Amino acid sequence: MKESLDFIYKQQKELSTYGGIAALLGWDQMTYMPPMGIIKRSEQSSLMSRIIHEKIVSDTFWNHIQILSKPTNYAALSDKDKNVVRRLKKDVEKSRKIPSDFVERMSKTTTFAYSAWEKAKKQNDFSIFLPHLKKIVELEKEYCGYINLTGHLYNNLLDDYEEGMTVDILKKEFDFLKTSLIEILRNITSSNIYEKQKNLNKNLSKEKQREICNIVIEKMNLPFERSRLDVSSHPFTTTMGYDDVRLTTNFERENPLFSFFSTVHEGGHALYELGMPQDEYKDTVISDSPSLGLHESQSRFWENMIARNKNFWKYFYPFFQKTSPDQFKDLDVEKWYNYVNQVQPSLIRVEADELTYCLHVILRFEIELGLMEDKIDVSELPQVWNSKMDEMLGITPKNDKEGVLQDMHWSGGSFGYFPTYAIGTIYSSQLFNQLTKHKPSVYDEIENGHFENIISWLKENVYRHGRIMTADEIIKSCCGEGLNSKVFLDYLKAKYFEIYEI
Amino acid sequence: MKESLDFIYKQQKELSTYGGIAALLGWDQMTYMPPMGIIKRSEQSSLMSRIIHEKIVSDTFWNHIQILSKPTNYAALSDKDKNVVRRLKKDVEKSRKIPSDFVERMSKTTTFAYSAWEKAKKQNDFSIFLPHLKKIVELEKEYCGYINLTGHLYNNLLDDYEEGMTVDILKKEFDFLKTSLIEILRNITSSNIYEKQKNLNKNLSKEKQREICNIVIEKMNLPFERSRLDVSSHPFTTTMGYDDVRLTTNFERENPLFSFFSTVHEGGHALYELGMPQDEYKDTVISDSPSLGLHESQSRFWENMIARNKNFWKYFYPFFQKTSPDQFKDLDVEKWYNYVNQVQPSLIRVEADELTYCLHVILRFEIELGLMEDKIDVSELPQVWNSKMDEMLGITPKNDKEGVLQDMHWSGGSFGYFPTYAIGTIYSSQLFNQLTKHKPSVYDEIENGHFENIISWLKENVYRHGRIMTADEIIKSCCGEGLNSKVFLDYLKAKYFEIYEI
Repeated sequence: MKESLDFIYKQQKELSTYGGIAALLGWDQMTYMPPMGIIKRSEQSSLMSRIIHEKIVSDTFWNHIQILSKPTNYAALSDKDKNVVRRLKKDVEKSRKIPSDFVERMSKTTTFAYSAWEKAKKQNDFSIFLPHLKKIVELEKEYCGYINLTGHLYNNLLDDYEEGMTVDILKKEFDFLKTSLIEILRNITSSNIYEKQKNLNKNLSKEKQREICNIVIEKMNLPFERSRLDVSSHPFTTTMGYDDVRLTTNFERENPLFSFFSTVHEGGHALYELGMPQDEYKDTVISDSPSLGLHESQSRFWENMIARNKNFWKYFYPFFQKTSPDQFKDLDVEKWYNYVNQVQPSLIRVEADELTYCLHVILRFEIELGLMEDKIDVSELPQVWNSKMDEMLGITPKNDKEGVLQDMHWSGGSFGYFPTYAIGTIYSSQLFNQLTKHKPSVYDEIENGHFENIISWLKENVYRHGRIMTADEIIKSCCGEGLNSKVFLDYLKAKYFEIYEI
Repeated sequence: MKESLDFIYKQQKELSTYGGIAALLGWDQMTYMPPMGIIKRSEQSSLMSRIIHEKIVSDTFWNHIQILSKPTNYAALSDKDKNVVRRLKKDVEKSRKIPSDFVERMSKTTTFAYSAWEKAKKQNDFSIFLPHLKKIVELEKEYCGYINLTGHLYNNLLDDYEEGMTVDILKKEFDFLKTSLIEILRNITSSNIYEKQKNLNKNLSKEKQREICNIVIEKMNLPFERSRLDVSSHPFTTTMGYDDVRLTTNFERENPLFSFFSTVHEGGHALYELGMPQDEYKDTVISDSPSLGLHESQSRFWENMIARNKNFWKYFYPFFQKTSPDQFKDLDVEKWYNYVNQVQPSLIRVEADELTYCLHVILRFEIELGLMEDKIDVSELPQVWNSKMDEMLGITPKNDKEGVLQDMHWSGGSFGYFPTYAIGTIYSSQLFNQLTKHKPSVYDEIENGHFENIISWLKENVYRHGRIMTADEIIKSCCGEGLNSKVFLDYLKAKYFEIYEI
């Protein structure tokens, strides 16, 4: 027992060290690496991935986990050890289901597929990506066979990102969400306000954008000694260690709202990572998020619930005004708030507004489901995409670059990933609903730029659990119920019907 | 044979991949890592060091090397394989002489010693560092016992940085160099020009300094797609891979000359790294520098021979003038050249001028030798330091912070390292002497900012050899003789007697 416990803790610690190294290799690749560094970098990254995989599925590791999982042994463990062993057993058991030759085939296929996708997007030619995507879809099905959960085939993919989530639950929530969103959108687009709304075309230089972003992460209490903000093409957050969590944004667009909201979004991810349980669970499998959906709930919480809130702008709009007094002098905070929350059906998911965003996600979910059920053929994707865009958002992409080729996820084999964006968005509204119900003073705090109590509340209700519970269990323990898109819809209606005077 | 060859090439490739990862961990630590990231970073770095060491001394690796080294087998190898096997055998044999418990003891001792040194320097209190340095000196002697070369004990330490270098050779060169430098310095300090010289106090903002540094590395033909310039407390160059070589500088000082010359210096290191032999020797032990001295010769070549040359300033001074026309308008290039080359005995090695620099190095060499020969006790170091400073430079540090505590090298156990700074400086003058003798057009090229031919010459005479030969062999093959401080002294006399009108 002692020997097995020592081994599994040592192994987890090494895995966490390798994980941090792999994160640094990835971060550097996206931020500072000279372009030609990629050749050696891909070798470095795959070496780390291979070693991490080998350590996870190693027989010695598995034997020790099994020894500790025997009922008589397990019963004698401390609560902490029980949590760790239970979690490890589930994780390692799952990883060991996947043959290593499959891991290699998938890795090779996605490496080529990613380049093909880049080229296809650049040249606006889906046919370049088509054969690769076909292979990936076949590999995804093969993968499901190895995992072999009960119920829908797609459950096996969902489970990787959102443990325990099923097609049954999601279809119910997403169908309701989709119908309701389309209806709200119709109300909005036929309103007088919508008719008259226009793009205000506010521009800020990169330097000014950087200034604003630095202010907002400081206000969000991101500790500079444990974190930093850099620049990459696509904003992301990554963790090299408990005291080293880094976020990125992008200042290429002249409109400052993209860099601002993406910084706040990534800041939410970073606060979660920085708040992971450490005391007893440091360097264990517990000190992590239980699902991508819950992780996304933390970014969406700050991006939507806080930073798109009217009270937030009462506090924060003056910082924008200060950067460029001329541009903002004729625009009061009320108008600015409405502008920031303008609804406008658009083609690109990452630029979508709060209201239409989930429709982009549901579209991808329906397509993934169709592919797994053999109801859609990969070759039909551009047409299917465009007709679904028309159905949900009433617009059609001019080309595949702005349509089916816009996201990189499928080229990496990340099927089952997209739904977590909507799950997280819904969760964030449930968390905010719960927070404001129990602490109505929160609105005042937001208006005064005080976020300490909000962070404490998130720590208490989300961060500190790490992976002791699943995301579903954490949400239930905090909100009294699991995923509920009705809460999100009520929030949207109250907010947008006011803005659009409906 | 085939199996052994496959193994050793695979092993070298993995070592090179791990080496690149370790380099990134170090680079990031010095440039962008949030302060508290150090806790996890030290775990990450020591994990990589441990794995690299284990791979180098692994029995399987050694067995394959021995198989290939058997006379009959070795004779049947290609020239390339012969070079690789011969080099590997020497390296691995040496590494295997050191017991792993020693490596661990040294690593633990230096970790604590580094913190103690930092504290001692901050508090200006040598006694804090003293017990740690004592331990390190004992460990250095123990180390020499394992390596056990013939001749002076200190040869074992020198050999790690400058293969084949001995105390006999160095004492002869350094004694001559020391006496001559002191004499030249006496001539200078008693000249009229020296009497009247003053600090011009030129200041540039960080942004302007960065501008100048970016211009100079571009002029030096450093390819941006394989390289980049960042900021760290102490300038350095590091290699993540053949196509990813990064240098740093520091803009903290208001005088722009520190960042400028350190950028040129590191640029010289970087050009060398970027020029390592690749075609057949990629990812082998050959694709590296044979010694620190030769590496330093490349940085000194650019810093001293090129960038402190009068012709260089005819070309480059206008770039300085442009950054701050007011400051430079009354200063012609002749005066600027003299200012840039002002001699001034000073306390800090890294800020020393070209003439006095080697005296700082010789002082450290004499102390290291005294410690190894038990002629100096560690506790006497501050006094010994100060009296040697007085003897060589005619000045005495006010405190140990500006004296014996200024460099970090000893805290890291790097005994035998300092001499390479002077070796490299001498080598650089020998290389430049050779270059200008065969290609007198070089001076014109420098005046016109054309450095392509110079780089080609360095490639041909230094870079392309990698570690096929030792540094001594490379210098001999290019210059017709080994280390010769007379060449360096002749260069100094010609240059400084002109400046000081002696």
